[in-house]
Amino acid sequence: MEPTTPPTRIPVPRDREDDYSNAAAAARRAFVTEHTGAKLDHVGSYSIDPATLPGNVEHFVGVAQVPIGLAGPLLVNGEHAQGEFYVPLATAEGTLVASYNRGMRLLHEAGGVTTTIMADHMQRAPSFIFPSARESRAFGEWLDENFDAIKAAAEETTSTGKLQEIERYSAGRILYTRFNYTTGDAAGQNLTGKATQAACRWIRANNDTIEHHFLESNFATDKKSSTINMLRTRGKRVVAEATIPNEILQRVMRSDSALMFRARQVSNLGGFMSGVNNNGAHSANGITAMFIATGQDAANVAESSAAYVYAELRDNGDYYFSITIPSLIVATYGGGTGLGTQRECLEMMDCYGTGKVGKLAEIVAATVLCGELSLGSAIVAEEWVDAHDAHGRNRP
Amino acid sequence: MEPTTPPTRIPVPRDREDDYSNAAAAARRAFVTEHTGAKLDHVGSYSIDPATLPGNVEHFVGVAQVPIGLAGPLLVNGEHAQGEFYVPLATAEGTLVASYNRGMRLLHEAGGVTTTIMADHMQRAPSFIFPSARESRAFGEWLDENFDAIKAAAEETTSTGKLQEIERYSAGRILYTRFNYTTGDAAGQNLTGKATQAACRWIRANNDTIEHHFLESNFATDKKSSTINMLRTRGKRVVAEATIPNEILQRVMRSDSALMFRARQVSNLGGFMSGVNNNGAHSANGITAMFIATGQDAANVAESSAAYVYAELRDNGDYYFSITIPSLIVATYGGGTGLGTQRECLEMMDCYGTGKVGKLAEIVAATVLCGELSLGSAIVAEEWVDAHDAHGRNRP
Amino acid sequence: MEPTTPPTRIPVPRDREDDYSNAAAAARRAFVTEHTGAKLDHVGSYSIDPATLPGNVEHFVGVAQVPIGLAGPLLVNGEHAQGEFYVPLATAEGTLVASYNRGMRLLHEAGGVTTTIMADHMQRAPSFIFPSARESRAFGEWLDENFDAIKAAAEETTSTGKLQEIERYSAGRILYTRFNYTTGDAAGQNLTGKATQAACRWIRANNDTIEHHFLESNFATDKKSSTINMLRTRGKRVVAEATIPNEILQRVMRSDSALMFRARQVSNLGGFMSGVNNNGAHSANGITAMFIATGQDAANVAESSAAYVYAELRDNGDYYFSITIPSLIVATYGGGTGLGTQRECLEMMDCYGTGKVGKLAEIVAATVLCGELSLGSAIVAEEWVDAHDAHGRNRP
Amino acid sequence: MEPTTPPTRIPVPRDREDDYSNAAAAARRAFVTEHTGAKLDHVGSYSIDPATLPGNVEHFVGVAQVPIGLAGPLLVNGEHAQGEFYVPLATAEGTLVASYNRGMRLLHEAGGVTTTIMADHMQRAPSFIFPSARESRAFGEWLDENFDAIKAAAEETTSTGKLQEIERYSAGRILYTRFNYTTGDAAGQNLTGKATQAACRWIRANNDTIEHHFLESNFATDKKSSTINMLRTRGKRVVAEATIPNEILQRVMRSDSALMFRARQVSNLGGFMSGVNNNGAHSANGITAMFIATGQDAANVAESSAAYVYAELRDNGDYYFSITIPSLIVATYGGGTGLGTQRECLEMMDCYGTGKVGKLAEIVAATVLCGELSLGSAIVAEEWVDAHDAHGRNRP
Repeated sequence: MEPTTPPTRIPVPRDREDDYSNAAAAARRAFVTEHTGAKLDHVGSYSIDPATLPGNVEHFVGVAQVPIGLAGPLLVNGEHAQGEFYVPLATAEGTLVASYNRGMRLLHEAGGVTTTIMADHMQRAPSFIFPSARESRAFGEWLDENFDAIKAAAEETTSTGKLQEIERYSAGRILYTRFNYTTGDAAGQNLTGKATQAACRWIRANNDTIEHHFLESNFATDKKSSTINMLRTRGKRVVAEATIPNEILQRVMRSDSALMFRARQVSNLGGFMSGVNNNGAHSANGITAMFIATGQDAANVAESSAAYVYAELRDNGDYYFSITIPSLIVATYGGGTGLGTQRECLEMMDCYGTGKVGKLAEIVAATVLCGELSLGSAIVAEEWVDAHDAHGRNRP
Repeated sequence: MEPTTPPTRIPVPRDREDDYSNAAAAARRAFVTEHTGAKLDHVGSYSIDPATLPGNVEHFVGVAQVPIGLAGPLLVNGEHAQGEFYVPLATAEGTLVASYNRGMRLLHEAGGVTTTIMADHMQRAPSFIFPSARESRAFGEWLDENFDAIKAAAEETTSTGKLQEIERYSAGRILYTRFNYTTGDAAGQNLTGKATQAACRWIRANNDTIEHHFLESNFATDKKSSTINMLRTRGKRVVAEATIPNEILQRVMRSDSALMFRARQVSNLGGFMSGVNNNGAHSANGITAMFIATGQDAANVAESSAAYVYAELRDNGDYYFSITIPSLIVATYGGGTGLGTQRECLEMMDCYGTGKVGKLAEIVAATVLCGELSLGSAIVAEEWVDAHDAHGRNRP
Repeated sequence: MEPTTPPTRIPVPRDREDDYSNAAAAARRAFVTEHTGAKLDHVGSYSIDPATLPGNVEHFVGVAQVPIGLAGPLLVNGEHAQGEFYVPLATAEGTLVASYNRGMRLLHEAGGVTTTIMADHMQRAPSFIFPSARESRAFGEWLDENFDAIKAAAEETTSTGKLQEIERYSAGRILYTRFNYTTGDAAGQNLTGKATQAACRWIRANNDTIEHHFLESNFATDKKSSTINMLRTRGKRVVAEATIPNEILQRVMRSDSALMFRARQVSNLGGFMSGVNNNGAHSANGITAMFIATGQDAANVAESSAAYVYAELRDNGDYYFSITIPSLIVATYGGGTGLGTQRECLEMMDCYGTGKVGKLAEIVAATVLCGELSLGSAIVAEEWVDAHDAHGRNRP
Repeated sequence: MEPTTPPTRIPVPRDREDDYSNAAAAARRAFVTEHTGAKLDHVGSYSIDPATLPGNVEHFVGVAQVPIGLAGPLLVNGEHAQGEFYVPLATAEGTLVASYNRGMRLLHEAGGVTTTIMADHMQRAPSFIFPSARESRAFGEWLDENFDAIKAAAEETTSTGKLQEIERYSAGRILYTRFNYTTGDAAGQNLTGKATQAACRWIRANNDTIEHHFLESNFATDKKSSTINMLRTRGKRVVAEATIPNEILQRVMRSDSALMFRARQVSNLGGFMSGVNNNGAHSANGITAMFIATGQDAANVAESSAAYVYAELRDNGDYYFSITIPSLIVATYGGGTGLGTQRECLEMMDCYGTGKVGKLAEIVAATVLCGELSLGSAIVAEEWVDAHDAHGRNRP
C-alpha cells in the first residue's frame, strides 16, 4: 500500500463571478470532455435554470434524466390523503411501475389503503462525555431540570423546529442523547442540526461537568438504518393497512391468501434469522422511485426502507396486511422539492409546499403497501396456478 | 377502517400500438393535467428516446431531472481503477458535492485511496420445507452431492451467471439456502432469479422429499439491509483504505487525527448500541449520488449503504482509515446504465460496458472514503479550531 | 416423523400429605434408581430443610452441589458497596476463580472499581391489538390520560412494585407496551407480572377499543437477550469503571495498555460485525458464578450477560476501562436468596435482605470488571512477553 | 472518581501443601467468618471430595446447594435419545419444574418430541491484521492452500478435536476467521483454544505477511450471544419438533391451537422489533436448570438460550411446533460433569461419559420444547377459559 506520488491535481473549474450559470456548466462539461474524452450532450440537456440551484448542488454540470412512469389510481383512506392519486415513479428498473400499478388496482378493488401517521420525530443525537458515570447520571437529571431553557436555545435558530424531548442512553462515562423535534414540512435534518448545535452551546455554557461532546455519535443514524430509529421513529412512522377479500386476490392476482400467509410465515422467520431491517418484500423500490421523482433526498432510502410487516389470515379467507414504515423521511418544502420536475411531480399529487407533508407520507406508505401485495402475490402465483391446474379448475 | 366504496377507476392510458413514444408520453402528461391540474412541462423536457425505454420503465411520462455536480479529481490506487477520476454526483442536497470534493482533495494530497474487491457474490435465496428437520438435514447433503447438476441447470439460463456455492441455514423443518453467483458486469438480480428458478425446478423434479419451496424468504434480502449480507457479501465486498499524515489533516481539513480518533471511539460504541448497519458517517450520500448519475438501481442503496469502518491512530499521528462496503451492488451493463445521461456519466470514468464493473466498484468505494474523512473532519473541526484558538496558535 | 405410540406414562411420585419432606425426596430418589439404575447418593446429601422449599422447586429430590471458590478482596468505590469484599463464585470451570481473583488484585492496586447504578426498571410488556392503527394510536394517548388509574390498579397487587411509565412501540394494528416498575430488593418478574395483569384487567374494563391483548409478546424478553432491554434497561443498569496506570498492568498482569487497546479496537469491530450482545470478554462467567452462589435466577444470565465496554488509552499510558451491564437482574430478597448456602453467600458480602440490592448489583458489576481486565490482559500477555523478550528487557 | 488509597490487601489464604482438602476449605471458611462475620455452615456441608476438584475450582470453600426437582417422563424420538427420560432440573424458581413437567405430559400424549442434531461445530476465532486489505485477501487464499498443514498443526494438540473448516470474514486490513472443530463428548472450548493457538503458531511461522494476530476478537463470542453463532452454529444445532392435536391441547392445557398461533404471530413481530435473540418463550429456564444439574458450564446459557421457533396451525387444528437451538453447548465428559451430584444426574439419563453427548443434546432440546408449549399454553389459557365460559361450554 505504498502511496503513489500524487500527480499534479487539476481541480474542477469554477466561475468565480457566476458559477450557477449555463456557461459555467458548459465549461465544466467541456473540461470533462477534454480530460476524459466523454461527451455530455444528454447531461447538458435540461430545462431547469442553474440560477435556482445554489443550496442544491455545487459544480453543476447538468442533470441525470431518470425516466418517470405513472402508476395509479391509488386509492387512499388517510387522514391527510383522501381519494385517488396518480403516482410518479422515477426508475430504470423494468416492471417496477407495472408491479406497483397492479397492486394499486388490487387495493382499489379492495376499497383502498388506510394510512395513519403514528409519530413524527426528527433528531440529532449529541453525545456527552464526563469524568465518570456519576456525572453522566447527574447530567441526565440536569437535562430534565433545564429542558425549557434548552428548548428555548434550540428553537431560537428555527421557526419550524420544535424540541419535543431528549432521550438518553448511557454507557460508561458517556451519555448518548436524542434530541427529538417536529420539523413541519421540511425533512429537518439541517434545522435540527443547527438547533441542536445551539442547544449544545447553551448546555456547555451552563454545565461545567462535561469533558467533551460530539454533535453526532451514531445514535440518530442519519442516512443509515438502525434499530433505534426503527423502534423510536425517525421522520414519520406511518402505517398502511388493508383487508383484502381472497376472491379479489385470486381473481386479480392469480394468488391466494392462504398461500401468501404460508410464504409469509417462512419469510418472517427468514428475516428474523438473517438480521434484515424489513420483513416485507421490497419497499425500497417504491420509496426510491417516489423519492427521486419528488425531490426527496434519495440517500434517506437507507433509513426509510426499513419496515415491519404484520399480516393475518382471517377465518373467512380475507387477508389483513399492514406495513409500518418507522423512519420515513419526506418533505414537501426545501431540499430538492422545488426543482422543476420534482415540483411538478409533487403538484400532480397536490403535495407541494407547506401543510402537505402528512399527505405525501401517507401516499408513499399506501404506494408501498400496493407493491408489497403485488410482489407477494407474484411469489406464490406460480404455485397457485400449478395447484389449480392440477385440479383442472382453470383449464381453458 | 371501513373500506370506502371504490370510485370508478380510471387507469393510466396506454397506447396499444406504440406505448414507448413521445406521443404516448405526452398523452399521459395531458391525462395527468386533466385529472390533477398539474402541468408537467419540465417532466416532458428530456433528450432521451422513449423507444429505448422498454425494459426500463412502464407508463413513461417523462423524466426527473436530477442536478449533477462534479467532484474530483479522485486519485485511486485500485486493481481495476488506477489514476485520477472526475466523479458525477446527482443530488439536490447542498454541500454534498463540495464535501466529497474536499475529501478527494485531502486524499489526493495523501497519495490516493487504495481499493480492493474482497469478494463478489450475487444471490437468490430459496427456502425448502420438509416433513421434518430430518429430511431437511438430508437435503443439505443431497445438495452437495448434486451440486454439479444443479449448477448446470441454473447456468443453462444465463451466459454470464456462474453458480459458486449454495449456503445453508436451518430452522425447524425449513432449510434456507443462498445460491451465490458471479454475474459479470451486470448487477445480476434478474439473472440469478431466473437461474435459481431453473435450479429449483431441477431440484423439485429430482428430489421428492420437499413439501414446498419459495424462491425467496428473506435470506438474500434484495433491497433490504441485513446482517447476513453484510457478513457473507452481496454484490461486491470492497475495501477502500488510506493512511493520512496528520499534517495534511490539520492543514487541509482544520482537523486532527487524535480528535477524529476520539470521536470515532464514541461513535463506534454508539453504533454498537443503536443497532446501526454502518459505523461510518454517511456513505449513502455518495453512493446514492453516484447510483443516480450512473444508472444504478438506487433502491439498492438500502443494502449498499451498509459499511464497516476501521481506523487507527498511529504513534506518529498518522490516521489509518478504512471502509468496507460489504454489499455494493453495481453494474456497467444492463438496467439503467445504457440510458442517455447515465451512460455519459459512466463514460466520463471509462466505466461503461463489459469488463468495467470492478473499476466502477472501486471508484464508488474510493469516493465513499473521501466523504467519510470529509464529514469526520468537519465534526471535530470546531473543537480543533477552538483548541488552537485557546492556545493562540492560529490567531491572525 | 411418525409419532410413537406413547408408552404407559409413569409420573414422578408425589406425597399428597407432605411432599416437601426428606421422605418424599428419598422416595423420588428411589423411584429414579428403580427406573434408571442411577444412584443419587450425592444428590441426597444436603443440609437444607425441604420444608423451606415450597415456592422454590417441585418434585424435590435433593441438590446439585456446585463448588464455590473465594475471590478477593474486591475493592469497590460504589454508592451502595464501599470497601473490600470477598466474593463467592460457584463454578466447576477451572481457572475462573483464579482469573477473577487476579483481576481483583490488579484493581485493588489501582485504587478499586467505581460503580454506579444508572437506572432501575423491571417490566412486563403486554401487547394490545385494535381494529386498525388509528385506534392503536388513540389508545397510546388514552394510556397517558389514564396513567394514574392504571398505576393504582397495578400497585394494588404489590407493596414494593411502583409503576414508573408505560413505553409504547407500534406496528400495524398492534401496540406493544413496556410497563416499567421499580421492585425494591426483589428481582420482580413475578410481582410485575401480577401487577401488569391487574393493570390490563382495568384497561380492558375501561377501554372497549381493544380486540385482544397478550400479557407478553417479546418486548420485555424475560430470560432472553434483546436490543430493547440493552437500550432501555431491564433490572439494574450498572456501570463499573476504573483507570489503571500502565505500570500496574505491566507489573501485575505482564500486559500493556497500548496492546490491550489495540486488541480492543479489533474486537470492537468483530463484535459489531458478528452481532454479539456484548463487546466485552466474558462477563457471563463471573455473573453466573455469583448468581448460582447467591441464589439469583441463573437463567437470567441470558439477559444479564449483555454488556457494553468502553475503553480509552490515555496519553500517559493509563487505561480507562468501563463496562456497562444494562440488564442486570439481581435480588437480595425472595427467590433462591433465602436458601441455606445462598443466604450464607449473600451474608458474607452483607447483602442479604431488604435494602441491599443496590449493594449486590455494584459488587457484581465490579467483579465483572475485574474479570474483563484479567482476561483482556491474558490475551495480549504472550505478545507482550514476546515483545519484551525480543528487546532483552525482561531477560533473567 | 478519585481512586481510593487502597487498604492493605489481605488475600484469600491458601495451603501451599494441599489446597484441595477439607482442612484448607475449612480454613477459608473461618477466614470468611473472621473478616465478614458470616457463618458458612451450609456451604461447608458437602459430600464431594475436595481432592477431586483441581481443574474445577480454586480457593474452594464449599458448595452451593441448588435444589433439584424431577420432571418427566419425557418421551423423545431422537437419533441418540430414544424413549422415556426423567429429567433433573436444578432451580430455586417455583413452578419451573411443574411447568416443564406439564409440558412433558402434553408431549407424551402427543407421541413425544422428535429431535435432530443438524450441525456440530465448536470454534475459536482468531483475527489476523495485515498491511492492507490486499494481503488479507491473499491470506484467505493461502489458508485454503495450506489447510491440511494447518489442520495437522491444530490436531497435534488434541486427540478428540478435528478441524473442519476455517470461515473468513473481512473488514479493512483485518481478516476475522472461525476455526470450526468437532470435539467429541467435550464442550471443547479449551481444546479448540489450544488447537487454534498451535495452528496460529504454525501460520505465523509460515506466513510473513501478518502484522499481528489475536486469538479471539468477538467472532466466536464464547459466553455471549451473537448472530454469527446463531447462523453458523456453536456447539450443537438441535431441532426439537412435534405436532400436537388440538384436542390434546384443549384437554391437557386448557388451551387452543388457534389462540396459541395468534399469540405467536404477535410475539414473532415483537421479537423482530425488539431485537431479541430468541422468538420463543423461555428456553433459558429449562436449559439453565439442566446445565446446573448435570455439570455443564452454566455461563454458556448466555449463548445456548438463543433459539428460533417456527410453528404452524394446520387446517385440521393441529399445532406443529418446533424450536431450533443453534448454539447448544453441552458435554458428557470433562468440566463439571464428573462431580458427585452432576455425574449422578447425567447417569439418571444414561448420559455420562463418552459417546453420550448427542443423547444429552437431544434430551435438552426436547425438554425445552415441552417448556415452550407449557408456557405458551398458559399465556392464552385465560382467554381460552373466558371464551368457553362466555359460550357456556365449560360451566360446571
